[in-house]
Amino acid sequence: MVTESERAAFEAGIKLGALYHQFTGTPVGLDTAESLEQAIKSSISLQPYVRDVRVRIDRNIISESLNRFGYCELNGRMLDVSLEVEFEKTRVCAALKYDGNYPMMRIEEVHGI
Amino acid sequence: MVTESERAAFEAGIKLGALYHQFTGTPVGLDTAESLEQAIKSSISLQPYVRDVRVRIDRNIISESLNRFGYCELNGRMLDVSLEVEFEKTRVCAALKYDGNYPMMRIEEVHGI
Amino acid sequence: MVTESERAAFEAGIKLGALYHQFTGTPVGLDTAESLEQAIKSSISLQPYVRDVRVRIDRNIISESLNRFGYCELNGRMLDVSLEVEFEKTRVCAALKYDGNYPMMRIEEVHGI
Amino acid sequence: MVTESERAAFEAGIKLGALYHQFTGTPVGLDTAESLEQAIKSSISLQPYVRDVRVRIDRNIISESLNRFGYCELNGRMLDVSLEVEFEKTRVCAALKYDGNYPMMRIEEVHGI
Repeated sequence: MVTESERAAFEAGIKLGALYHQFTGTPVGLDTAESLEQAIKSSISLQPYVRDVRVRIDRNIISESLNRFGYCELNGRMLDVSLEVEFEKTRVCAALKYDGNYPMMRIEEVHGI
Repeated sequence: MVTESERAAFEAGIKLGALYHQFTGTPVGLDTAESLEQAIKSSISLQPYVRDVRVRIDRNIISESLNRFGYCELNGRMLDVSLEVEFEKTRVCAALKYDGNYPMMRIEEVHGI
Repeated sequence: MVTESERAAFEAGIKLGALYHQFTGTPVGLDTAESLEQAIKSSISLQPYVRDVRVRIDRNIISESLNRFGYCELNGRMLDVSLEVEFEKTRVCAALKYDGNYPMMRIEEVHGI
Repeated sequence: MVTESERAAFEAGIKLGALYHQFTGTPVGLDTAESLEQAIKSSISLQPYVRDVRVRIDRNIISESLNRFGYCELNGRMLDVSLEVEFEKTRVCAALKYDGNYPMMRIEEVHGI
């Protein structure tokens, strides 16, 4: 037996793992960060049970990371993501934020709706 | 407040989402499937709280999918994965298996250890 | 010794290989295809020596490929890409187009500028 | 008209771009680097016109990059790749090596066979 909140938490984890491993490595610069944020948000929003996705790519870290050709690769240091998943009557809010040297994924809240 | 079993389920979801989006698209053939299975297993085993990973790439589906150059791309149809995650005193067993036209990820069991 | 046109052809190949393996597997649907096209175009345009990128994701193939949740994954069948690379005085036009069962990448033109 | 050597250079570029964007981001540690090297080599060897692939993941850089969980992600800094492509009577040797802050891909040699 799997509870509704375990299932919702599982679904939230899938989405963060997917997002991270699909999009890190993508070339990004100051002028294209917004387009990439939008594409990440819209693609992950398609996945089952996703209710909302917010994606922010840190422009300061992009600026510090530019290579000789004027761009860099999307990585965990610059990603700030939060999302909400609803499975039946349970909502899970989860986030990805760089913490120390690790792109930490956390459940922020589980509640009934 | 997040329970131990919600957290364990979340961690299992992260690993399956990561595995799928990291490795699908990889060129694979009958002679290289075993090496790819091994690399997937060993890389996902490094992630936090993972206790075991089993990866099977279906050779029949590889055979049916070969392109004119004799290989194909790893995709959800040919992947059969199960893994165990332990967070503190809770173990979650989860799996990825193609079902209809979808690479379905499921929690198979949650139990105390 | 490497000629200018060999170098330009090499650079064009890098971009098509990168694009394909970075973005295939991304969740996509009819409403998000345009955002994904834009993000692919803008990210690949950042890479060295790229002068132009055109990306078209085939909406008919998306429609035929939708899973039970109403989306699918970007794959080689639905991608139509062409790009121009300039290295010093040489321009190479190259393309990715599905052909039979293979996402064929081809040089379409090499000429001085 | 595309020459044999332009075509061979293009094919070499495709393979390096593909390899980089398929495999960077993969979890890797000292104990799993060899398995990942092997899987990369065997998967890229399947692609058309590839004659040889050598992949080396720098263990020192892995050691310096370990996160609190004892692993890191494969990135351009730690990758050293060389490959040979043959198209008809032309062989191209190409390589990927970190140079400054960039995973530089270069043609090392073009010659008839």
